[in-house]
Amino acid sequence: MSTRQDCVARDARDALAPLRGRFDLPQGVIYLDGNSLGARPIAALDRARQVIADEWGTGLIRSWNTAGWFDMPRRLGDLLAPLVGARPGEVVVTDTTSLNLFKALAAAVHLQAHGAGSARRVIVTERSNFPTDIYMAQGLSAWLDRGYSVRLVDSADEIAAAVDADCAVLMLTGVNYRTGYQHDMAALTAHAHAQGAVTVWDLAHSAGAVPVDLHAAEADFAVGCTYKYLNGGPGAPAFIWVPERHQAAFTQPLSGWWGHAAPFAMAPDFAPCSGIGRALCGTQPMVSLALVECGLEVFAETTMEAIRAKSLALTDLFIDLVEQRCASHPLGLVTPREHASRGSQVSFTHPHGYAVMQALIARGVIGDYREPAIMRFGFTPLYTSFADVWDAVEILRDILDQRAYDVNASRGAVT
Amino acid sequence: MSTRQDCVARDARDALAPLRGRFDLPQGVIYLDGNSLGARPIAALDRARQVIADEWGTGLIRSWNTAGWFDMPRRLGDLLAPLVGARPGEVVVTDTTSLNLFKALAAAVHLQAHGAGSARRVIVTERSNFPTDIYMAQGLSAWLDRGYSVRLVDSADEIAAAVDADCAVLMLTGVNYRTGYQHDMAALTAHAHAQGAVTVWDLAHSAGAVPVDLHAAEADFAVGCTYKYLNGGPGAPAFIWVPERHQAAFTQPLSGWWGHAAPFAMAPDFAPCSGIGRALCGTQPMVSLALVECGLEVFAETTMEAIRAKSLALTDLFIDLVEQRCASHPLGLVTPREHASRGSQVSFTHPHGYAVMQALIARGVIGDYREPAIMRFGFTPLYTSFADVWDAVEILRDILDQRAYDVNASRGAVT
Repeated sequence: MSTRQDCVARDARDALAPLRGRFDLPQGVIYLDGNSLGARPIAALDRARQVIADEWGTGLIRSWNTAGWFDMPRRLGDLLAPLVGARPGEVVVTDTTSLNLFKALAAAVHLQAHGAGSARRVIVTERSNFPTDIYMAQGLSAWLDRGYSVRLVDSADEIAAAVDADCAVLMLTGVNYRTGYQHDMAALTAHAHAQGAVTVWDLAHSAGAVPVDLHAAEADFAVGCTYKYLNGGPGAPAFIWVPERHQAAFTQPLSGWWGHAAPFAMAPDFAPCSGIGRALCGTQPMVSLALVECGLEVFAETTMEAIRAKSLALTDLFIDLVEQRCASHPLGLVTPREHASRGSQVSFTHPHGYAVMQALIARGVIGDYREPAIMRFGFTPLYTSFADVWDAVEILRDILDQRAYDVNASRGAVT
Repeated sequence: MSTRQDCVARDARDALAPLRGRFDLPQGVIYLDGNSLGARPIAALDRARQVIADEWGTGLIRSWNTAGWFDMPRRLGDLLAPLVGARPGEVVVTDTTSLNLFKALAAAVHLQAHGAGSARRVIVTERSNFPTDIYMAQGLSAWLDRGYSVRLVDSADEIAAAVDADCAVLMLTGVNYRTGYQHDMAALTAHAHAQGAVTVWDLAHSAGAVPVDLHAAEADFAVGCTYKYLNGGPGAPAFIWVPERHQAAFTQPLSGWWGHAAPFAMAPDFAPCSGIGRALCGTQPMVSLALVECGLEVFAETTMEAIRAKSLALTDLFIDLVEQRCASHPLGLVTPREHASRGSQVSFTHPHGYAVMQALIARGVIGDYREPAIMRFGFTPLYTSFADVWDAVEILRDILDQRAYDVNASRGAVT
């Protein structure tokens, strides 16, 4: 049984603790929603001033070259690459996760259609996947109008069987946004390949949260988000990974000028550039894009192994304390206890989950709520302390013991 | 024959002159490239601080609701709408021009395929259109793989004949990026409709540059850019217009969760929301998006008619002065003299256009260069004065008279 003093002592010997100073977090807030929107790196404000005042205001059009704007998707991609086991020249930061998923799915379908298994027409994914992933696959399938469909499986156990002789693509999110369940990427990829399918991985809740080694897993394509664990800023551009071995065959319909071999030759026919650049499309939002670097800079000061060790310690502690100190309340752990199957969040159900979460937020403990009945708590080792975990659980306990929540609380949209 | 004093006098009685004070422009620069990247509104820096420090840093995840982030594409769309003759609820600011064009083209093709002219499979556009427009049409056509193709016409005169019984969509850019030639949107739309085709207009060089009345022209779909004449910031999110009459039938394959009828219900099937929201896809880059408002605020202080009157006066003056004062040099006017056919830029060819432009930039006159041999000069009435025009021509004349340019200047990428 821990005490708050134990937690403070752990913080004192935590090698990652000093990195909290790199973030701006409001007084009185315990922020457990970095899995939805990462906290603000302090450096972001000055970087924005630099881009807006110096590069845009003074440099004007010249900054496309002199400030490196045009190359930024590639440069940031190379900085991000080591966090997911990618190599230089394999990642670009661009567009949104949804759009990058569309590109990756289109490329995966194309790869299949030109391979041995050309009769395959099914994209397999989980019903519990983040909805936009399913929607993009549905949009792609409906528009291809060549018999493609999306097959939804109801549990992780059913994935292997669903990847059959009809399956063209297995599209999964590495860590489930709602439950925090983490797939075995290497095993599922190996199974998909054995069945003749191509894999597309969404790393939205993995990149910066858990160690990822795309090459070791022999994954085919991956996309991910920079505004959650990577702290890139609200809605910051997403990323796409295409391993070198698939780049020559990578083709996708969003063939804008930034993906052209010679964009400034202004030729009337599209010719994709070689390499990862063919995943680019149109001109990118430079202010938001530039801020992604401020989040990545913090990761350069530690390792994903150190982050993972602290993440598991934080989530273990949270689970233990909730189960001990809120034992008399109807809380149900949704997130796996097994480390290998856990991301960097903990989800509990409660019959009044929405109302309890609103009460927590009002008391400064910011998590979020996802239908049905799930309270999500994200643990971000760069800026969350063991004492934060203790204090959050004590506030949760107090709210539950006092029934200090409004079961009629109206619901707003939270992304 | 004007004098510099005449120009200064015109500036003194120019009702738009005070708006220059709303922009940050470096000392010693005459900025004639607002057709490529608009100047920085002074308000942008403080707005960025607000979004980054207050909304992201302090508001954190709550800002999706409390700071209006989630609604921003619609709210900015409503602010932009009057500049292009659109109505409230018909425009969203989102994604890139290339991607919005893809959505509009897909919707146009869908509208056709379900109409009387379902055998139509040709997208007509100009070979001189901005390349990304052509590339996106090529990408869509190839991927649909149902006999669609892109037909390129070599001159504006040939457009009418190219819109024949095979033409599904006429896709044009209102003002040509290279020549500054402006199409007659109403006449070409009427012709396309008479032939049974649907129109998609790219307003990248029209919005904020010339008066546009999409409803009067009875256009079908339109997209545009916010980082040129609208001064939204480098690579700022673009816009898409879908008139109310086409919204119920509007369907496009980039069906991400922001276009869903109930994005937070997390349902496993895509169901588009009613209205313009179905043109949305994924989570938007909020810092870049928010800055678009700073550009639009300046337009709220004047009218497109006042802007157009000054634009024509500036471009007339520039043409006159160049032709008078640089008469001995091999400059060729590419932009139409006729007002109705002119956008808000002037392009001249010169055998050493690239080198001359580099010399101009080195002397503080910032225009840009486009293959082949074209020097572009954009005139943005919000922050360009008549004296600027005089001074720019004098510097051009001096460079040409002195042959003060390096014909071996190496070429960089300029967007």
